[in-house]
Amino acid sequence: MSDSCGYAEARRVAIFGGTHGNEMSGVALVSVWTRDDREIRRSRVRTEPFLCNPRAVEKCARYIDTDLNRAFTPENLSMPGGEELPYEVRRAKEINQIFGPKGSPDAYDVIFDLHNTTSNMGSTLILESATDHFNLQMVHYIKKAMAPESCMVLLTEHPQLKYSTTRSVAKHPVGLEVGPQPQGVLRSNIFESMRRIVKHALDFIEMFNGGVEFPACRVEVFRVHERVDYPRDTNGNISAMVHPHLQDCDWEPLNPGDPMFQTFDGSTIAYQGAGPVYPTFINEAAYYEKHQAFVTTFRETLAVSAIRKSTK
Amino acid sequence: MSDSCGYAEARRVAIFGGTHGNEMSGVALVSVWTRDDREIRRSRVRTEPFLCNPRAVEKCARYIDTDLNRAFTPENLSMPGGEELPYEVRRAKEINQIFGPKGSPDAYDVIFDLHNTTSNMGSTLILESATDHFNLQMVHYIKKAMAPESCMVLLTEHPQLKYSTTRSVAKHPVGLEVGPQPQGVLRSNIFESMRRIVKHALDFIEMFNGGVEFPACRVEVFRVHERVDYPRDTNGNISAMVHPHLQDCDWEPLNPGDPMFQTFDGSTIAYQGAGPVYPTFINEAAYYEKHQAFVTTFRETLAVSAIRKSTK
Repeated sequence: MSDSCGYAEARRVAIFGGTHGNEMSGVALVSVWTRDDREIRRSRVRTEPFLCNPRAVEKCARYIDTDLNRAFTPENLSMPGGEELPYEVRRAKEINQIFGPKGSPDAYDVIFDLHNTTSNMGSTLILESATDHFNLQMVHYIKKAMAPESCMVLLTEHPQLKYSTTRSVAKHPVGLEVGPQPQGVLRSNIFESMRRIVKHALDFIEMFNGGVEFPACRVEVFRVHERVDYPRDTNGNISAMVHPHLQDCDWEPLNPGDPMFQTFDGSTIAYQGAGPVYPTFINEAAYYEKHQAFVTTFRETLAVSAIRKSTK
Repeated sequence: MSDSCGYAEARRVAIFGGTHGNEMSGVALVSVWTRDDREIRRSRVRTEPFLCNPRAVEKCARYIDTDLNRAFTPENLSMPGGEELPYEVRRAKEINQIFGPKGSPDAYDVIFDLHNTTSNMGSTLILESATDHFNLQMVHYIKKAMAPESCMVLLTEHPQLKYSTTRSVAKHPVGLEVGPQPQGVLRSNIFESMRRIVKHALDFIEMFNGGVEFPACRVEVFRVHERVDYPRDTNGNISAMVHPHLQDCDWEPLNPGDPMFQTFDGSTIAYQGAGPVYPTFINEAAYYEKHQAFVTTFRETLAVSAIRKSTK
């Protein structure tokens, strides 16, 4: 017990839906739980469902002016000004007021941010830090509880790529990314998977707050390596599609020489890297404008410390 | 031969993409063929690729102000006015000028309008009339040429439901609807299916124009019966999802008592009709705002007359 990490109780938890207004599972779940929160109530933690981008939800669009899930930069959050700012920058400041301030002791303990993807990623948990053992223990718990259904862990910690996500306001930010689901569509299978993940996550927090100690363990994660764009012509238009051998193969190894893109005239562009990578977010609709056909990851196994509630 | 229908040569053909700016197969194919039209060139017919809604394509949205594919009403097409009209109404008037006027002898012979759906419809040809034997012979030819891949035929002829589609400008309007593909995503398998259908369609026209006679045949079609909306609460928000037993089961029979919707609290709503129907456009993203979870159809077999080129 002596080498376990102490973490404060997670008393204040939020569940964010509609950070992107056309990702319907989170929009629907937050709407359901706002009307009746019995399903997400636990005795030792207060959990609030929250709709992040109501104007984008209304329009069934990803965003109005700019991507809310990239808007939580220090510059935006400290920016003076009001109505003249882009809608999502205003909204980021509001969310930071309510659930933050980001990086402060007043910030919420845990934020679950509910997302969908058009990629064939299945159920995925997204973490921003490899040293947050509270979150790592939580995803370990969720993975076990979801089995035999798989639940992957994407680690976005990266020296250059910074995301400035909505959930980054919390002390322990957790992204849920469930797919494949088209934008603007609600599929019952995706909805139910997301619902089960949230249930297990809240059960974990309840147990943790109740004093349960979680022993050291190991968690397999996929650490973001680099973004790969579509081939483009001189006008910036894409000139090839994700190759049918790569399409829908999120999390599977892509080896040097494997087909990666198929040009409109039928020729194949192969992956040229030095060794295997694990692509994910393959052919995600929202990432065409971000110049990303997929992101490569490396698979690694993290050693997770035992954790217990700190006795203050 | 004496009972065959004479149809005029189909000399002017257009291929429309981007009627909906986020349905990417048609947008990409029209773009490819605008740069290099060798693939769609035939000796006896002139074929023009055309991007219908460039502003919606630019935004990767279905439309800017209103659905272009419902805008070709007599009222819109004869409406005076300019810049103050909704963008798609102006665009409908322009398209009607270039490819119509609708219902006139000057109208284009055939327009293929390329669409994608988030529904699991596979390759579908959409016809507006059960008495256009030229089109029925064409879809018969395409179905045979596409085999063993299936190619369904949806007949939208209906006493009440009117669509006023973009392609309705032509003498012989043909919709191509290929899915499943999320909005804003280009999948190579869907792209290639659509490309093959267009190839076979142009081959048919070339043969017809060259004097080939097509004998009487029978074609299986699915005739639109009625639209079914999602269950909704008193605020108009949906209160149930397409049931997992119905999801992705386009073209399969739905019998009385079969599960149709699943409410957010897990209960099932069954289909209550008098007999089997064949649902399609199941859970199409763009139809939430049209209050349509799916459309029911009846399966029927049409007797198609022999056709030949009229000798003027």
